[in-house]
Amino acid sequence: MANNKIPNRILLAEDQLPRYWYNLRADMPEQPDPMLNPGTGQPLQTQELYPVFCEELCRQEMDSQTRYVEIPEEIVEYYKTYRPSPVHRAYRLEELLDTPAQIYYKFEGNNTSGSHKLNSAIAQAYYAKKEGLRGLTTETGAGQWGTALAMACAYFQLPLTVYMVKGSFTQKPYRRSIIQTFGAKVVASPSDTTNAGRAILEKNPDTTGSLGCAISEAIEKAVTTEGYRYVLGSVLNQVLLHQSVIGLEAKAALEQYDIYPDIIVGCAGGGSNLGGLIAPFMQDKLTGKANPRIVAVEPASCPSLTRGKYTYDFCDLANVTPLAKMYTLGSAFIPGANHAGGLRYHGMSPILSKLYHDGYMEAVSYEQTNVFKAAELFSRAEGILPAPESSHAIRGAIDEAVKCKESGEAKVILFGLTGTGYFDMSAYEQYLSGTMSDTIPSDEELAAFVPKLG
Amino acid sequence: MANNKIPNRILLAEDQLPRYWYNLRADMPEQPDPMLNPGTGQPLQTQELYPVFCEELCRQEMDSQTRYVEIPEEIVEYYKTYRPSPVHRAYRLEELLDTPAQIYYKFEGNNTSGSHKLNSAIAQAYYAKKEGLRGLTTETGAGQWGTALAMACAYFQLPLTVYMVKGSFTQKPYRRSIIQTFGAKVVASPSDTTNAGRAILEKNPDTTGSLGCAISEAIEKAVTTEGYRYVLGSVLNQVLLHQSVIGLEAKAALEQYDIYPDIIVGCAGGGSNLGGLIAPFMQDKLTGKANPRIVAVEPASCPSLTRGKYTYDFCDLANVTPLAKMYTLGSAFIPGANHAGGLRYHGMSPILSKLYHDGYMEAVSYEQTNVFKAAELFSRAEGILPAPESSHAIRGAIDEAVKCKESGEAKVILFGLTGTGYFDMSAYEQYLSGTMSDTIPSDEELAAFVPKLG
Repeated sequence: MANNKIPNRILLAEDQLPRYWYNLRADMPEQPDPMLNPGTGQPLQTQELYPVFCEELCRQEMDSQTRYVEIPEEIVEYYKTYRPSPVHRAYRLEELLDTPAQIYYKFEGNNTSGSHKLNSAIAQAYYAKKEGLRGLTTETGAGQWGTALAMACAYFQLPLTVYMVKGSFTQKPYRRSIIQTFGAKVVASPSDTTNAGRAILEKNPDTTGSLGCAISEAIEKAVTTEGYRYVLGSVLNQVLLHQSVIGLEAKAALEQYDIYPDIIVGCAGGGSNLGGLIAPFMQDKLTGKANPRIVAVEPASCPSLTRGKYTYDFCDLANVTPLAKMYTLGSAFIPGANHAGGLRYHGMSPILSKLYHDGYMEAVSYEQTNVFKAAELFSRAEGILPAPESSHAIRGAIDEAVKCKESGEAKVILFGLTGTGYFDMSAYEQYLSGTMSDTIPSDEELAAFVPKLG
Repeated sequence: MANNKIPNRILLAEDQLPRYWYNLRADMPEQPDPMLNPGTGQPLQTQELYPVFCEELCRQEMDSQTRYVEIPEEIVEYYKTYRPSPVHRAYRLEELLDTPAQIYYKFEGNNTSGSHKLNSAIAQAYYAKKEGLRGLTTETGAGQWGTALAMACAYFQLPLTVYMVKGSFTQKPYRRSIIQTFGAKVVASPSDTTNAGRAILEKNPDTTGSLGCAISEAIEKAVTTEGYRYVLGSVLNQVLLHQSVIGLEAKAALEQYDIYPDIIVGCAGGGSNLGGLIAPFMQDKLTGKANPRIVAVEPASCPSLTRGKYTYDFCDLANVTPLAKMYTLGSAFIPGANHAGGLRYHGMSPILSKLYHDGYMEAVSYEQTNVFKAAELFSRAEGILPAPESSHAIRGAIDEAVKCKESGEAKVILFGLTGTGYFDMSAYEQYLSGTMSDTIPSDEELAAFVPKLG
C-alpha cells in the first residue's frame, strides 16, 4: 500500500530542532516599504514601538539585516515539548485522488493550542518575561492565537488579557474555556473596558466585533496599563521570523530523503503560517538556488491578496496602529458571515505582500463549501480533522494534485496543515447539514472599503 | 532547565513500531475464569460468539495461549500514520512539584480520536472488512471510542452505527458531529430502534442512558442486521491485546535510555488503556524479571476495583451478554451525575480483575475535583490539556511524586496520558466555576446493585 522508503511521518530528532530563526528580509532584493507614523507620515523608528511591544521584539520587527537569529535556550526547551513537528506523507490521500503527485504536509496541530501559533506565542511571552513585564494583552479571533498565548503565559506565569472577537466569544464557548483553563482573562470585544470599544459599541451596539476592533482594544489596554505590552500573532515581521521554524524543519525533514517540493501551498490570513512555512524555500528562490511555485490560499470572502489593493493602511479598526504597506481590503472591511475562521483579517503581512507584489508567489481564493469538501475528504483519508483555516491549503494542494493527474506529472507538493478543527465543529455541522454559505463580496462592496491613504 | 541526556519527547522511528501484540494471558500463572453462557451456566465456546463479533476477533477473545500475535500489515500501515506515539519526560511538572522523582508519560492523544482507542478500533474494523462484513455497530459514552471507530470505518469504507449514551449525545454535540464527519450514523441511546431501548424508555422515558444500555442496543442491532457485527472498545481480552502496543512502545522507548519504571500508573474504566500500558511490564512481573508497582486509578463515583465485588456479572444493562467474572458494581449500577467521562462502566476487564484479585496490582480512587485540580496543574506545566479520564492517572502520578519528595526517593514514575480534553470543556467549565460535584456512592447505595449471580 505505502512506499516503504519514505515513512508516513518524517520525524526529526530533538537535537535536529533548529537553533536559529531565519529572517527572510535579509535575502529580499527589495525590502518591504517601511511602516509609517500616521501622524507625521515619516518612517517609524524602532523606539516609537517601545510603548506597544517589548523592546527585543521591536528590534526584531525592524531588523531586516540579521539573516539568522539565535533562538534563546529557554524557547528551545519549550519547543522541545512539542517540536520538531512531523512532515506527513499523504499516502492515502494520493491513493484516493489517484494522482502521480507526492503530497506532503507539515503538521503543526499536535499541541494543545491546536496550531502553529504556539511557535511565536512562546517567543513573545519569553521576551516579555525577560524584560520584567507585569502582563500582556492580545486579541483573538478564531481562538488559536489566544489559546497559544495563554499556554505560553501560563508557562512563564505571566498575566494575560485576551480580547476575543464577540462573535467567537459567543459561538465558541469552549475556546473561551480553554483559554481560561490556562489562567488568562477573556474579554468579549468590543467591550466597555476601552475607549475604542466604547466608541464602537455606541455606534453599533449589536456588533459581533472584528479582529481589527479587538486589536484596537488590546493595544489601548496595553499602553494604558503599567508594565503591560501588546502582542500580536500574525502579520508582523517578528511573527514570520519565529514561524520560520516551520519551514526550516520541513526542509530538513524532506532533505533527509532527498526530496524538494515543486509546489508549496499554505493558507493565508495575516500570513504567519505561510511566511513561516515558505521561508527557507523562498530563500532558495530569492538566491537562485531553486524555483518552487509558492501558492497562497485565501477565503473568497476575505480575499486580501487576490482582490485587495497594495497600499498603506492601518492594521486595526480604530486606526491607532502605524501604517503598513500591504495588500488590504481596508481596515474597516469585515468579511461576510461565513466561516473562514482565522482568515478574516483585512490585511496581509507586509513581507508576503511585497513578495507577492514582486511576483515571487501566487495566490488563489476558494469558497467555504469547497474548502470544507476538501476537509471532509482529507479527514477520512488521513485521519486528522483539519482546522478550517488549514483546509484552504488542503483544497489548494488537492487541486494541484488533480492537475498532476491530468498532466501525468509526478510533482512534489508540500502544504502546511496548520492545525486541527476540534473547536470548529459548529462550522463542520453547518457544512454537513448544507447550511454553510458562500459569501463573495461584490466589486462595489470591496470598493467601499479601499483605503485612500497612500 | 532540563536534563539534556533524556529528551522531552522520546520518539521511536517508524521501523521500531511493534510488529506483534502481546497477549498477557499467556504469562498469567492462573487464567481469568471463563465467560459463561447465562442460559446454561457453562463456559462459553468460541463459536457461540460468532453471531456477535467477527470470527478472528472471537478467536483472539478466547485464545489465552498465543503469546505474540502478529499485527497484520494493513494495521501496521495505519498505525504508522500516528504511531509510534511519544513518551514525554515531564520536566516542568517535576520542577513545579519539586520532586526527586522522574515522571514520564506515554501520550496517546495526538490523533483525531483524541485517545488510545484508535489502536483497537483500526484492528477491529480491519478484521470486519477482511471478513466481508457489511457494517458494524458499537456504543460510545464519552465519545472517544465512537470517534476512533468512525475514523477506522471511514478508512476501510465500512458503514457504522454508533449508539451514543443520551446524556453525552445531548451535552456533547461536537463529539456527535465529529463522529458524523467521519461518516458514521449516531443514535441517542436509549432509542426506539431496538427492543432493549424501547423497554428501557417505557420504564424510564426521561433516562439519560448508560453505557450498559447502549451496549445492549448495539448488540441487538448487530445480531438482527444482515452482515453486521458488534464491536466494543474496552473490557474485552481482544481489546487489551490490541492496546498492548502502548506498553510495548513505552518499554522500548524507555529502554533506549536504560530507564525502567518503579511505578506505573493508569486510569481504569473498562481497562483498555491500563491493560495495554502495563502489558509488557506485567509480563516482567509475572515472569520474575522485574517488580514494578502497578496502580489503577478510578473515579470515586464508579469504584469497581476498590469497592466492587469480584464475581460473575453481565456486561450490559439488558443482560444479553455472556457472564464475565470481574470486579463489578452490578450491571444496573449507574454512577452519579458528576463527570468521570469514559470511566463510568460498572465492570472491569476480566484480565485486570484477575490480576488485581491475585495481588499483582493496586487500585486507588479519587474524587472529580481532585482529579481536575491535577489536570489544571498538568496543563499549565506541560502544555497539554488532558482528558478527564487521563487526569485520574495524572492525579495518581502526582501523588506518588509528592510521596517521593517526602521520602527523598528518586523513583521513576510512568503514567498513561490516554487522551486530550478538547471535547470535555464543559467539565472544565464546571471545575473552573466551582460547580463540579464529588459524588461518592454510600455502602447502602452500592449494596443495592451487587450482582447475586455466582
